[in-house]
Amino acid sequence: MTSRIFPTAQDAESAFYEALERADLEAMMAVWAEDEEVLCVHPAGPRLTGHAEIRRSWAQMFSGPARVRVHVAQQVAISGGMIAVHSVQESFTVEGASRGDAQPAPVWATNVYLRTAAGWRMIVHHASPAPGQPQSAPPEGGAPRKILH
Amino acid sequence: MTSRIFPTAQDAESAFYEALERADLEAMMAVWAEDEEVLCVHPAGPRLTGHAEIRRSWAQMFSGPARVRVHVAQQVAISGGMIAVHSVQESFTVEGASRGDAQPAPVWATNVYLRTAAGWRMIVHHASPAPGQPQSAPPEGGAPRKILH
Repeated sequence: MTSRIFPTAQDAESAFYEALERADLEAMMAVWAEDEEVLCVHPAGPRLTGHAEIRRSWAQMFSGPARVRVHVAQQVAISGGMIAVHSVQESFTVEGASRGDAQPAPVWATNVYLRTAAGWRMIVHHASPAPGQPQSAPPEGGAPRKILH
Repeated sequence: MTSRIFPTAQDAESAFYEALERADLEAMMAVWAEDEEVLCVHPAGPRLTGHAEIRRSWAQMFSGPARVRVHVAQQVAISGGMIAVHSVQESFTVEGASRGDAQPAPVWATNVYLRTAAGWRMIVHHASPAPGQPQSAPPEGGAPRKILH
């Protein structure tokens, strides 16, 4: 386990999506809080709880040959001291997939980060399929916004 | 708009599901923070932003003849001062529906609450379809747990 410290929730979020793109399990798990209270819902999947169960799901996901690029957009960031909540739209491009040009639909993700003694860590990742075309206008050009700090 | 004050995030959550069951639009919107930063994703729907857009979606949902009962279970509650995050499984029972006995699949919801000057209010409701049978064991009998307070 690497011991990277993320000074902001945004740093943790960037590391999360970098790890996902690189299919780097150790880097992925270094983003998560070392706590049994962590929760992960992959699109249309069950709710996974705890480090071990979440690690297993990413290991399975990263074990295939397909690599993905993730475009993260329309971020809304809400921060309240100890906890930060980011809502984003994830758009995946599959590289090396065997299904040709088929691309999965975009995904809405709610990512929750906790300020720990070791910097900001992810505690919740809830992802779910979005309609093919977002019907909701991007908030003010998609720039991150905060209502508290 | 009623001016109910919710002393805890749990009070706001209870009021949210009561309003949903009663299809009471004013009670529903009284749970939400009066803020343009509020976000709502209904299962497989777009991300709705702002009070007006979210109000419209509930008004549409409540306008039909069907009334629902919601069983909320497997709550995990995480609180960090200004923000509380609740993850729950919602199971719906449709009353008076025209489709007979068909029941919708369970739903995972991530509900985020903000401590405002007027008590705790909802700022994010992200709901998405869960697999028919949860594959993840309920955490310790489904009792609410907190990691911070």
